Amino acid sequence: MFVIGERINGMFTDVKKAIQAQDPAPIQQLARDQVAAGANALDINVGPASPDKLGAMQWLVEITKEVVDVPLCIDSPNTEVMRVGLEAAEGNAIINSTTGEEERMEKVLPLAAEYDCPVIGLTIDAEGVPRDANGRMEIALRLVSACMEQGISTTDLYIDAVILPVNALQQVPQEVLNTLQMCKALSDPPPKTILGLSNISQGALHRELINRIYLVMALANGLDAAIVDPLDSELMDAAITSEVLLNRNVYCDDFLKAYRK
Amino acid sequence: MFVIGERINGMFTDVKKAIQAQDPAPIQQLARDQVAAGANALDINVGPASPDKLGAMQWLVEITKEVVDVPLCIDSPNTEVMRVGLEAAEGNAIINSTTGEEERMEKVLPLAAEYDCPVIGLTIDAEGVPRDANGRMEIALRLVSACMEQGISTTDLYIDAVILPVNALQQVPQEVLNTLQMCKALSDPPPKTILGLSNISQGALHRELINRIYLVMALANGLDAAIVDPLDSELMDAAITSEVLLNRNVYCDDFLKAYRK
Repeated sequence: MFVIGERINGMFTDVKKAIQAQDPAPIQQLARDQVAAGANALDINVGPASPDKLGAMQWLVEITKEVVDVPLCIDSPNTEVMRVGLEAAEGNAIINSTTGEEERMEKVLPLAAEYDCPVIGLTIDAEGVPRDANGRMEIALRLVSACMEQGISTTDLYIDAVILPVNALQQVPQEVLNTLQMCKALSDPPPKTILGLSNISQGALHRELINRIYLVMALANGLDAAIVDPLDSELMDAAITSEVLLNRNVYCDDFLKAYRK
Repeated sequence: MFVIGERINGMFTDVKKAIQAQDPAPIQQLARDQVAAGANALDINVGPASPDKLGAMQWLVEITKEVVDVPLCIDSPNTEVMRVGLEAAEGNAIINSTTGEEERMEKVLPLAAEYDCPVIGLTIDAEGVPRDANGRMEIALRLVSACMEQGISTTDLYIDAVILPVNALQQVPQEVLNTLQMCKALSDPPPKTILGLSNISQGALHRELINRIYLVMALANGLDAAIVDPLDSELMDAAITSEVLLNRNVYCDDFLKAYRK
């Protein structure tokens, strides 16, 4: 599983404070810790931390790049902020994200082509998130087609089937699992699949348990990547064990140790 | 998930000692504890504990029935021992098990018809356990046909796709997941599916972790029942959470507490 660390996000209080104080130390520590815990890329999101979103994104990318060399996942609803982040990341980036809306794809996909980087496509359109797997697949197909038109390889497209909180919409987790399977038949080679995992447990009581059980289910249904908290060691144990059981990593007796740095 | 508690088995030292001493107390405690922990049925297996397998089976069933009223899963390779267990269980039983070999099915399936109880069918034939899902499905189809011929409803057949230790055959877990999915298309209504879970981690270092991660994967692929240790509370947490995420149990905030007695 390609692990994108979720912690550098102005939604978290520690990150918000560091952005407001322009103090790089806590952010750089989170960057190092997440990579040491197994993150293959790091999400970077200014969130509600600063009114100067352009400046904050540039600063976050620059200070993170000083301490780690993994791809940075530039996470913003604003394409100007996105461009600043991509520029600062100097090509080692992932775009997070476009929806399947024409207007949005027309702005975001050219950035993916220009900066030659993978892009996350959410199965959301003007009407919101579809109720079932078929609705998600219609949007996924639009995303694949639009990428092809822009000369973006389907293997650089990560379809995010948009998991919603289980306490609000209990039928969605199964629909998303079905979507993960169906995505593999969408094109040859197929797009990759990704989930922003933590959303499933928003407002729930047993958050970490729900997150890791659903991650295992998603991996068993073909999930390629996830935006998660890699500092949750039980979550990472679950992911490592899943990959051994799915024969994606070679078994050895102490596989937990072997697949950590 | 229909949970069959695995602990009353002469393979375990505590049970072996109790059988040899003809001391019902430890067995009855295990029976009560497993049912309290969520077991819907209890496996009963004399194992290597006694040369008098007929007498030991009868005794185990009788003392277990004194304290719990769940179905007992009569587990023996010997059909005479099986008959003694079924007789003692007075119809509240499950047969564990037949293989897909003609000779074995001819002996075991009439017992299932006579005692009107569900039967577990292993995807094993004279050549052993098939390498892949297709081989398992061929045997599963033979089991379904043989049940139909005996007038046994397919919903009373539990197909056990035979999980093997991951440290020996790392491709098997995925093949078994595929088999679980394919079984649902085998007949209408389809047979149920079951796994003897613990076998996957035989000889492995992180046994409980492997067991619970694989159980979650199997549930996400449609598993109906499993023979497990219900006293492993993290395993039961994983199963309960899986069923909530698969919308098989209604969500409530403290679902772990709600789905325990």
